[in-house]
Amino acid sequence: MTFSKAASDEKAIATIRCLAADVVAKSNSGHPGAPMGMAPMAHTLFSRFMTVNPAHAKWINRDRFVLSNGHACALIYILNHLLGYKDLPMEQLKAFRQIDSKTPGHPETGHTEGIEVTTGPLGQGFANSVGLAIAQANLAATFNKDGFPLFTNSTYMFTGDGCLQEGISSEAASLAGHLKLGNLIALYDDNHISIDGDTACSFTEDVEQRFLAYGWHVSHVLDGDKDLEGLYKAIEAAKKVTDKPSIIRVKTTIGFGSKQQGLAATHGAPLKADDIEGVKAKFGMNPKESFVVPEDVYAAYKQIADRGARPTRSGPSSSRPTATTADDAIASRKLSETVLGKLADAIPELLGGSADLTGSNLTRWGNAVDFQHPSTQLGDYSGKYIRYGVREHAMGAIMNGLDAYGMHIPTAGTFLNFVSYAIGAVRLSALSHHRVIWVATHDSIGLGEDGPTHQPIETAIALRAIPNLMFWRPADGNEVSGAYLVALQSNSIEKTSKGGYVLVENKDADITLVASGSEVALCNEAVAKLSDKGIKCRVVSIPCFSVFDAQPIDYRLSVLPSGKPILSVEAYSTLGWAKYSHAQHGINTFGASAPAKELFKKFKMTGDDVAAKAQHVVKVFEGQTLVSPVELEAKLLAY
Amino acid sequence: MTFSKAASDEKAIATIRCLAADVVAKSNSGHPGAPMGMAPMAHTLFSRFMTVNPAHAKWINRDRFVLSNGHACALIYILNHLLGYKDLPMEQLKAFRQIDSKTPGHPETGHTEGIEVTTGPLGQGFANSVGLAIAQANLAATFNKDGFPLFTNSTYMFTGDGCLQEGISSEAASLAGHLKLGNLIALYDDNHISIDGDTACSFTEDVEQRFLAYGWHVSHVLDGDKDLEGLYKAIEAAKKVTDKPSIIRVKTTIGFGSKQQGLAATHGAPLKADDIEGVKAKFGMNPKESFVVPEDVYAAYKQIADRGARPTRSGPSSSRPTATTADDAIASRKLSETVLGKLADAIPELLGGSADLTGSNLTRWGNAVDFQHPSTQLGDYSGKYIRYGVREHAMGAIMNGLDAYGMHIPTAGTFLNFVSYAIGAVRLSALSHHRVIWVATHDSIGLGEDGPTHQPIETAIALRAIPNLMFWRPADGNEVSGAYLVALQSNSIEKTSKGGYVLVENKDADITLVASGSEVALCNEAVAKLSDKGIKCRVVSIPCFSVFDAQPIDYRLSVLPSGKPILSVEAYSTLGWAKYSHAQHGINTFGASAPAKELFKKFKMTGDDVAAKAQHVVKVFEGQTLVSPVELEAKLLAY
Repeated sequence: MTFSKAASDEKAIATIRCLAADVVAKSNSGHPGAPMGMAPMAHTLFSRFMTVNPAHAKWINRDRFVLSNGHACALIYILNHLLGYKDLPMEQLKAFRQIDSKTPGHPETGHTEGIEVTTGPLGQGFANSVGLAIAQANLAATFNKDGFPLFTNSTYMFTGDGCLQEGISSEAASLAGHLKLGNLIALYDDNHISIDGDTACSFTEDVEQRFLAYGWHVSHVLDGDKDLEGLYKAIEAAKKVTDKPSIIRVKTTIGFGSKQQGLAATHGAPLKADDIEGVKAKFGMNPKESFVVPEDVYAAYKQIADRGARPTRSGPSSSRPTATTADDAIASRKLSETVLGKLADAIPELLGGSADLTGSNLTRWGNAVDFQHPSTQLGDYSGKYIRYGVREHAMGAIMNGLDAYGMHIPTAGTFLNFVSYAIGAVRLSALSHHRVIWVATHDSIGLGEDGPTHQPIETAIALRAIPNLMFWRPADGNEVSGAYLVALQSNSIEKTSKGGYVLVENKDADITLVASGSEVALCNEAVAKLSDKGIKCRVVSIPCFSVFDAQPIDYRLSVLPSGKPILSVEAYSTLGWAKYSHAQHGINTFGASAPAKELFKKFKMTGDDVAAKAQHVVKVFEGQTLVSPVELEAKLLAY
Repeated sequence: MTFSKAASDEKAIATIRCLAADVVAKSNSGHPGAPMGMAPMAHTLFSRFMTVNPAHAKWINRDRFVLSNGHACALIYILNHLLGYKDLPMEQLKAFRQIDSKTPGHPETGHTEGIEVTTGPLGQGFANSVGLAIAQANLAATFNKDGFPLFTNSTYMFTGDGCLQEGISSEAASLAGHLKLGNLIALYDDNHISIDGDTACSFTEDVEQRFLAYGWHVSHVLDGDKDLEGLYKAIEAAKKVTDKPSIIRVKTTIGFGSKQQGLAATHGAPLKADDIEGVKAKFGMNPKESFVVPEDVYAAYKQIADRGARPTRSGPSSSRPTATTADDAIASRKLSETVLGKLADAIPELLGGSADLTGSNLTRWGNAVDFQHPSTQLGDYSGKYIRYGVREHAMGAIMNGLDAYGMHIPTAGTFLNFVSYAIGAVRLSALSHHRVIWVATHDSIGLGEDGPTHQPIETAIALRAIPNLMFWRPADGNEVSGAYLVALQSNSIEKTSKGGYVLVENKDADITLVASGSEVALCNEAVAKLSDKGIKCRVVSIPCFSVFDAQPIDYRLSVLPSGKPILSVEAYSTLGWAKYSHAQHGINTFGASAPAKELFKKFKMTGDDVAAKAQHVVKVFEGQTLVSPVELEAKLLAY
């Protein structure tokens, strides 16, 4: 195909630029410069290449568009408005960044139809798009047959300087190059401006050479402000390269058309009213009118939308709970391996992986095939196990992309401590309602000799505090299975595991011990020791705070009733446990290097230590009738 | 200088290899393969180039050695043993990874003399070394005069495949190339093996080309197992390149000498006894003896140590508290800017910066000069302000390196939400007792229109749970100043701010409102509203949990006394506040995009909302005498 310019091209680009200025000005907040600068590349991509179906936004074989520089989201809202997505009538463009609008400050999938992934935190979208491309490649290799190509879509991604500076994009780019993902095309908005000003102040690497080093197809368009034919040809050429991901460096002018074009001033604040008038005059629009779309521009975008309006089937919903599974160091990761093996046979959607800790996380089931380009002879694209390399942050964001595609259930492993490296992606997973399963092994001081650099003390509370994320810390095989069950069954938390339950009941108990994971066993030990001293105990296991919190109050009170004291026991920071207990036993320092058994002694985490602490707690509260924190919380909420 | 082989070279390398096998075998835990493989490059570097003074380990102009692949720490423990560091007699090599030893599972600075930075979490050491190199360059530019070169040391860093896969190393490498740090030399142990096996499964990028793209001097040694002359020449050539950092790719064989050499089997588990005997026989050592160092090897390392034994001055201690300052979105970052400006005049050690948010974080004082290579004409090496680019994780680890050098007080800014990207470095900062100051602006929903992708809800609790880290959330100018004061004054927490205090006292109060940051003002508003209803309030501000917790119990009880109910108010996850309060008011979901004022309404964070909640709390607890959680905690601790 050759490029032929349409009469509506310049007008459409002018419309996008003027709308971007209007949208940000009306909300008096946001980023006009990047959408104005990227308008030509966006219009060229959408008008000549993108196949989507706004009437069936979830059509599974649609091309995916990811705006990794998500602060430029006025651009995607405008494009999707022009395409006719129902969430984006003109009123929504006018409600940009306002309360309860469909046009939040950064794009959120699930919140706004037509937004594939949640972007804005820089670099996330870059890695998401690698996940979207892997998903497509895997489905194509699995289901496409000669003459019946079911999965043929491309993934297009826009990225800015900021994304390319973030380490997560380096991780994702290196992996994408290794995997030879020819279905992924990135357009790099090289506008030479970041918030601190000219990128000369901190970002002077040779980006093209860097991506060549990763094994990408690399090209450039030197006049991204005007050269539509150059943009067209670069994308066309990239599409022809099927064994490498592509990146096209597009030199653009930020805020093109503004009096301040090319300057950081156009990056993160609205243009002034007179400047906007000037922009409109320059582009042949009426300077006195705002939020204007000429009819022929709507018509051109109607044609684009029609291109995708063919018989479709809708994809599965991607609004499913996020889940994290934390396994203890000794046994439960083996239990997890067993469960994963059985699940993989029953659930072909599972797409596993590990950040170079396969043998430690036990995340690879027996008959798994690696997801690799066939030329490597290490696997093929129908494989269901991804070797992520030591790239935790990209792994997290790639899993988000895999889920966003709509046909996979991604699971992947690393040490719990290194989920911290990826927490930027994990919180977006939760915000975006991605069903993503982390297998986070080797928790707390139980990890032993690797020492405090590898022993998470604060990670559990950090994950427990993320809304819409289930952090599980199973104590035995049943809890491992329960965690997977809840993670896999969408929105049916109530019907399955309850997140917390009574393990040892005793109607005459003097104290309740509440714990998770390995420390449940310590509590059981302590019960016997305390019994010898005439102290009667109940034991409660709470493997998952958020699932337990979702249970009816009567159930929660049956688990943690008022009356006698409750003592929490966990080999982590005690912070947060006061919501379930009157006293806390834990570790509020960093760990140390030694065999696990000795560390549990050093940090007072033995059955004897728990018994001694419990005895003290019973004494302190002797004769008092205590209100359960659960009862108190319920009372305090009801007003 | 030309290379001449010494008689002791081969013997020293054999000694290091056999000791590495012995050390890991005795502890039955650890990583023998990498130390065995890196022995020739380590010996060449130490014997021919490194200048250190084991008797004065903190001598400021020593060469810095960073083992970024910290799991190979048997290597550095062995080298430092040979050099005669007092923390590392032979008994300590035999106590590898055991309780309370000086040889923990991964190297910890502050814990073991001669360890420059804490490494193991992959990629951290790489970025630390960039910080060490920046520190040297800055001091040299500031203090060296013709004929009086005070600061001349080099920073040498070993890195493995894993470090290079982590995004943090990409961030740091790109910045180091930009800054043209000719005093930094990395040796890449290219052994083609990671935990999942051959790097062919996930890491096939062209590392040399990637570093050329970053602007580094790049070379390689193809037989790193034996070619000492090649190693020598490569390092020598790298030292001559003074306007670029250098990386030397050294092809080695993991576990060289073992029956399993070249295989992942030698990576993370001890070699078998018979294999170790074979290694010793192969290298001319007695197979039946362990932990042997020939006298001429000790003698050779004595000579190395003597090279650094010249008149020295000791550097300042680097054991100082870590601090984080969180400023609210409107005013306190401006207060921070004022304080920083005054501090910069008084404290030349301050080395500021921001991850491309200078204008938002307000971290750059008025007369600051950028730290830039003079050829850029954007600053010079004596400059005190670093443009980190959008590289939060590297920024965190580089600050750790800056502090590790011993002469600077690093401060740097980003949004609080993006401290999450760097939390892997932040926890090591705390573990290593680095005095590092983060200026983390734009907290919670107060950030407004940027929306939930940028609004931290869970970050405060995550940081509060990190041991040895002060997370401050100041409510006014005094608290901003107090936070800086505590952060800057080593180990004098008691003498300065108390972390929490009574803002509004009322002897007849019906309730205490406890808050931090912006919500302190809401509590003050609520006081007036409640007064109209006949409810009397106290208001307490706790800007820093860990500093408050360090106060005497009498003081803490005077702030949060038993008797009447205590309600916490904070626009974050309520998790953790039960340690100070009977009831909590907060945000346990993600935020949203809108002007801040509207968000505070939507999330029930107005003076009216706080008053309503307080009124309810008073009613629920009417007639009860409550025990302060602070009193309870003290009682429970004393057993």
